[in-house]
Amino acid sequence: MYTPAREITARLTSLQGKMAATGTEAAILVQNTDLYYFTGSCQAGHLVVPARGEPVYLVRKSLERARLESPLDSIRQQHAFADVAAVLKEVAPGAKTVGLELDILPYNNYRRYAGLLPDCSLTDVSALIREVRMIKSNYEVRLLKEAAKMAIAMFDRIPGLLEAGKTEATLAGELESVLRSLGHQGAIRMRGFNQELFYGHLMSGENLLYPSFLDSPTGGTGLSPAYPQSAGNKKINRDEPVQVDYVSAYGGYLVDKARIYCIGRLPSLLEKAHQAALAVQADLVQATRPGVLCSELYHRAMTMVKELGYAGNFMGIGGDRTGFIAHGIGLELDELPVMAPKSNIPLQEGMVFALEPKMFFPGYGLVGVENTFLVTAAGVEKLTDYPEDIFYQG
Amino acid sequence: MYTPAREITARLTSLQGKMAATGTEAAILVQNTDLYYFTGSCQAGHLVVPARGEPVYLVRKSLERARLESPLDSIRQQHAFADVAAVLKEVAPGAKTVGLELDILPYNNYRRYAGLLPDCSLTDVSALIREVRMIKSNYEVRLLKEAAKMAIAMFDRIPGLLEAGKTEATLAGELESVLRSLGHQGAIRMRGFNQELFYGHLMSGENLLYPSFLDSPTGGTGLSPAYPQSAGNKKINRDEPVQVDYVSAYGGYLVDKARIYCIGRLPSLLEKAHQAALAVQADLVQATRPGVLCSELYHRAMTMVKELGYAGNFMGIGGDRTGFIAHGIGLELDELPVMAPKSNIPLQEGMVFALEPKMFFPGYGLVGVENTFLVTAAGVEKLTDYPEDIFYQG
Repeated sequence: MYTPAREITARLTSLQGKMAATGTEAAILVQNTDLYYFTGSCQAGHLVVPARGEPVYLVRKSLERARLESPLDSIRQQHAFADVAAVLKEVAPGAKTVGLELDILPYNNYRRYAGLLPDCSLTDVSALIREVRMIKSNYEVRLLKEAAKMAIAMFDRIPGLLEAGKTEATLAGELESVLRSLGHQGAIRMRGFNQELFYGHLMSGENLLYPSFLDSPTGGTGLSPAYPQSAGNKKINRDEPVQVDYVSAYGGYLVDKARIYCIGRLPSLLEKAHQAALAVQADLVQATRPGVLCSELYHRAMTMVKELGYAGNFMGIGGDRTGFIAHGIGLELDELPVMAPKSNIPLQEGMVFALEPKMFFPGYGLVGVENTFLVTAAGVEKLTDYPEDIFYQG
Repeated sequence: MYTPAREITARLTSLQGKMAATGTEAAILVQNTDLYYFTGSCQAGHLVVPARGEPVYLVRKSLERARLESPLDSIRQQHAFADVAAVLKEVAPGAKTVGLELDILPYNNYRRYAGLLPDCSLTDVSALIREVRMIKSNYEVRLLKEAAKMAIAMFDRIPGLLEAGKTEATLAGELESVLRSLGHQGAIRMRGFNQELFYGHLMSGENLLYPSFLDSPTGGTGLSPAYPQSAGNKKINRDEPVQVDYVSAYGGYLVDKARIYCIGRLPSLLEKAHQAALAVQADLVQATRPGVLCSELYHRAMTMVKELGYAGNFMGIGGDRTGFIAHGIGLELDELPVMAPKSNIPLQEGMVFALEPKMFFPGYGLVGVENTFLVTAAGVEKLTDYPEDIFYQG
């Protein structure tokens, strides 16, 4: 599953165009996911990218593996940290404005680069990187579609595994085992500081309302305050909603999908709210096309939710309510674009986002769906096409 | 599983002692794991700690949950980022030297604190935090012993699940399902930048030699270059070593353990090397006691390995060899102390480390063990006490 050379070239060309446009003469990339995206390998080291010309991938560990995985021409051993300065001088002679991934680079690491490059102005290249990564190529879409197939195969197994009296954590472990057997890498990468997720959120009833630290509409108790989210030791009961909101992964690419299950029957209050969440999704789907601003879609959803009478239930309750209705997704779960009040990014063909209209009810839990969509020339394609009504059994 | 108040008090007192000794007038902690360690909760926000007096836990999300989980007296809503400055002024009036977790805090986040506190000198408090966390209390040791029990219960299941022809990834998924059913939180936290691990490393034969980015003696192919470590699609064959090096977790506390399995028989070369690895472990165990330097133990191991004739096989092959033989472990996998050539930390009662003497053989794989040890007044206690010979079957 090696990334083709033309793919790497196109990504680097896109980044270099943005670098030239912003006066960034060179960039030094080091984060695992960014290295993977721009080289096809995430072996430890640095990718030194000039605004024009060929980049050099300096690899600390393992050079042999990086050479196998990456189609780049210039891949060399990094013997010492100072090699980064020498290579920078070689690929971008006289460069004064050098971009680093300042959104994720720890301060102490930053100080080492500042010490190594005393004559350079170190700027933040992370916004450019995130903009490049925001637009998925046909190659990436193929991997995302494989991840979506994995999601569907896993969700197909839920009715056979869901039982009253089983704990959330037991069901979670069973579904994770299914995902692993389908080729899931296990890990879900997030870029945001302090953001972490283990597969997703699987909760039932009132545990669906249990708040947590994560910038997500749901939290969950988890198994202890040390890792306080998702499935806990709560048993799944009859007549309550069970939400499986899990992330599948193929070749590093993530797809996010949620559905509601129930053993028995949910009150009509929740059934109606579920239909309202689907109506919000349907409305956004028909309004989504290239050129529309993310903030417009956010406000459109909020207006419709208010008209439908669910303003107090949408995307959380009280102070812990989430400030977005959709998030970009790809190699990381928290990519651009974000559909939030001030997100003035116009949608473009090739963007991929997970839209999660969910309605929360104190004392009951939540209903709604999550699907991963691809923005196309004509509108959107639902990658996670799958029945969306509440799955009843027993 | 809430952390007792006396435990939190002791941890904060230890940190405050080190802060006073180094002229750190206040510290602002924000990382999930550090927040959990010092408050008993890792809800998003800041713990503002004066060198003397009571800290304040300012919580952005979720205050309700933080109040339930943390025994601290002063837990308040963080309405805006600027609240951090106001609370700092309140708990440490006139403080000029303020410590941040500069080893993990992203540069852009650092800039926000620098902008908020223009009159303060922002220093790195992470070394002090890591020193406090390095010494485990009796309470923490009890949690570690529960994690060790989980490891033993999981390893007991391996012989029944190991089959020739099964892929590494399939066996990995099955063992992860066992761990989850035993109450494992799933996630394994690491502090180091770009370090990430999903449960551990499970590989067979030559895949045990496949190098990766991780600062670890082993790598593994993984399922794709996007997440290039641990189990891959390689089938497990007869007469080759299978190493299961997995991390169990209880209440956030991690225990690291590895054993070698084989269907059939390993060549006597590997069997002898396995005994040599056990001899190195036994020698270090009898030499380990409070006061001994970590570097002394490292050099002692290297000397013995050389005498035994395994200098070319120990802890990796060629340039990708690991520079340590043991690492501290607790809430994170990469804690202090590290047994490395220049690690002049004297061992102290309450330290916990994972010692992993392993011998690598081109064309074959590796043999050896990993165990998690607690430093006691008398020497060490092996938390992962379990048979150590190669587990043969079939």
